[in-house]
Amino acid sequence: MIRFFNGRVLTSAETVEEKELWTDGDKIAFVGVPTPQKLAEQTFEREIDLGGSLLMPSFKNAHTHSAMTFLRSYADDLPLREWLFDRVFPMEAKLDGEKIYWLTKLAILEYLTTGVTAVYDMYFEMDYYVKACVESGFRTVLCDAVSGNKKRIVELEEKYEKFNGCSPLVKYDLGFHAEYTAELGLLEEIAKLSERLGTRVSTHNSETEKEVRECIEKYGKTPTELFDSVGLLNHGGAFYHCVHLSENDIEIIKNRGMWVVHCPASNLKLASGIAPIVKLADKGIGLALGTDGPASNNCLDMFREMFLMTSLQKVTLGDASACPAGLVLDAATRGGALAMGLDDCDTIEEGKQADLIVIDLDQPNMQPLNNIAKNIVYSGSKQNVKLTMCAGKVLYEDGKFFINEDPKLIYKKANEIINSMK
Amino acid sequence: MIRFFNGRVLTSAETVEEKELWTDGDKIAFVGVPTPQKLAEQTFEREIDLGGSLLMPSFKNAHTHSAMTFLRSYADDLPLREWLFDRVFPMEAKLDGEKIYWLTKLAILEYLTTGVTAVYDMYFEMDYYVKACVESGFRTVLCDAVSGNKKRIVELEEKYEKFNGCSPLVKYDLGFHAEYTAELGLLEEIAKLSERLGTRVSTHNSETEKEVRECIEKYGKTPTELFDSVGLLNHGGAFYHCVHLSENDIEIIKNRGMWVVHCPASNLKLASGIAPIVKLADKGIGLALGTDGPASNNCLDMFREMFLMTSLQKVTLGDASACPAGLVLDAATRGGALAMGLDDCDTIEEGKQADLIVIDLDQPNMQPLNNIAKNIVYSGSKQNVKLTMCAGKVLYEDGKFFINEDPKLIYKKANEIINSMK
Repeated sequence: MIRFFNGRVLTSAETVEEKELWTDGDKIAFVGVPTPQKLAEQTFEREIDLGGSLLMPSFKNAHTHSAMTFLRSYADDLPLREWLFDRVFPMEAKLDGEKIYWLTKLAILEYLTTGVTAVYDMYFEMDYYVKACVESGFRTVLCDAVSGNKKRIVELEEKYEKFNGCSPLVKYDLGFHAEYTAELGLLEEIAKLSERLGTRVSTHNSETEKEVRECIEKYGKTPTELFDSVGLLNHGGAFYHCVHLSENDIEIIKNRGMWVVHCPASNLKLASGIAPIVKLADKGIGLALGTDGPASNNCLDMFREMFLMTSLQKVTLGDASACPAGLVLDAATRGGALAMGLDDCDTIEEGKQADLIVIDLDQPNMQPLNNIAKNIVYSGSKQNVKLTMCAGKVLYEDGKFFINEDPKLIYKKANEIINSMK
Repeated sequence: MIRFFNGRVLTSAETVEEKELWTDGDKIAFVGVPTPQKLAEQTFEREIDLGGSLLMPSFKNAHTHSAMTFLRSYADDLPLREWLFDRVFPMEAKLDGEKIYWLTKLAILEYLTTGVTAVYDMYFEMDYYVKACVESGFRTVLCDAVSGNKKRIVELEEKYEKFNGCSPLVKYDLGFHAEYTAELGLLEEIAKLSERLGTRVSTHNSETEKEVRECIEKYGKTPTELFDSVGLLNHGGAFYHCVHLSENDIEIIKNRGMWVVHCPASNLKLASGIAPIVKLADKGIGLALGTDGPASNNCLDMFREMFLMTSLQKVTLGDASACPAGLVLDAATRGGALAMGLDDCDTIEEGKQADLIVIDLDQPNMQPLNNIAKNIVYSGSKQNVKLTMCAGKVLYEDGKFFINEDPKLIYKKANEIINSMK
């Protein structure tokens, strides 16, 4: 058992309480104020004096392409088509499993610095990606990125069986890259498989205006309408981006219980637009936050995403009261977990997974303590993340990593990989 | 002398070179690759092994109200008028010099964590503010925040004489709060004083659409046109915000050589809008970056401002290539110094002030090293600031502060101050 004491606990998006927290194995065993007797009866492998710091649920990064770290700062300040076709695609074609293994480890280091313990990742060479996560003690949900024609359905069922159950840290969801890269036949096959397995499907959706316009030209339907019409949304799942939605799209998303994963930094940097988050929240649609991949962001920083989520709504709606901090903090923690289907990683409660972070309040950007939740959203930074724990294991503490790998070796490998490709 | 070696130096916004840097007193004494003989002849009080890290010019925060730290997270998610009239103004009325002294020190701690060595500050109780800065070894330019009628001109000349020359770290500029809080008679008197002293004038300008509309209703002129018509812009200076500018305003700003200080986070959070930065840059207008005060941001983080500066232009113009990283980095360093009139703090050159920072590249968000300047703008964070030096003195290093005050006492005072006011 590990004991966290002498601090505060964020027990909901806006409630801070002076409590202890004990973990047992990968779970939260106790949250509360122990009686002297209860405390005396317990032995702990480690006791962590929080010194007034805050324990809170870890952040969940609900959309990313982790291994794209190699393209960080390699293709910025370019028009979207040039970025994608002249830079990203040709470099991705040179990747292999071994490279993805190291590039994923680089991303995991960064996730830990920003208090992320689980990511919803969409990429390829999943064996190597999963190996990197499991070796590091890092949690992930895989979303398949399949594209092309219906023959590729075979892979999805194989991967579904292979990755689900391969580790307590790993879950695999049916998915596909996007409407514009998948033939209709493939979408229909995925819908059938989803029905047969009784499971959710996730994908990129309505990221750009062009994508929506061309889908309407082709099918007479928006991407959301098309997905619904072929039966892809019957078991829920998550849509990444959702920048350009019609009123009918929003109704479908609400009625099907789809989660919307907002990726504000990526949507700005690629000039895609600003998603109608307040409108979605007002409808009661579940919201999560994602960084998207490092080629389009370029960092993997949940604090940046949180500030953007609220501030972009404020400026777009001309209303400084729009999208309050509580909504943002909820999306970045509980919402992210649920959008990924991680029902036991969402909040701080006894019996849930011990996916936690410690926020150092003894730093200038966190003072004075007028409102701790608002401090986190409006002035918080990676610098405040003192400790990141995933499944009961400390993976990051005081700037040091505990992921069974030397960070310097990871940096060296990442540089070698990109230099070998240039 | 202090020697920085075994690292890289950012010698312009996009050039990184493997050089050493030596400081002597408050100045940069040498930048280059020393001959063995030159090195042997020199004795150093300290030699700092950069271990591959990057030395770069420090950031300059060209618009802020430092002492407003007490209102951080005290008045968020509120409509603008309620924020200002029900929360900010009543609390500010309870401030005094002693409180401003401590609240300024809190801001200085935060500036140092984000690599800022100088701020262009507009607030009141300047004696206490200046005391806090000078005791801390921190550089500042004061911009007066006078408002009301022409009688107040007397104070400005007094303060101009008093603060200019009081310390090598302090400079005082003529200024006033804004068009909407100053009578025309006061503006005319400031113009005359500026003429007599041959000196620059700075102010808030065109932050909100309402401010511009009401000025046009009152004077038949935009604020920029009004300022120019009374002769306020004849010796340059800086305009803070500039969100809502006409084509003619832009011409005036260009012709008068006024600096524009962009405050993107504050403009989003208060729902003011997005300044036309690319248009201003295309005209050759000088650009700087500011955080604005902590009540409207809420943090004092230049990395956040840099990412917003570029990404908001990209999304507004629908062009992922807009506002490239070099332009942003230049505004955050050189531009900020020049907007404040600090001609000797702008770049890394021999003879300039030693206002420097060290960026730790051995962190996951800085790897791989495809492009260091783009890494700083797109994925940099306060976490990467390893050392902050102002006027040749190390004020912050590895998370520790060297400002002649215990940070814990500053936090305690800040909490006591706000709690005594509630």
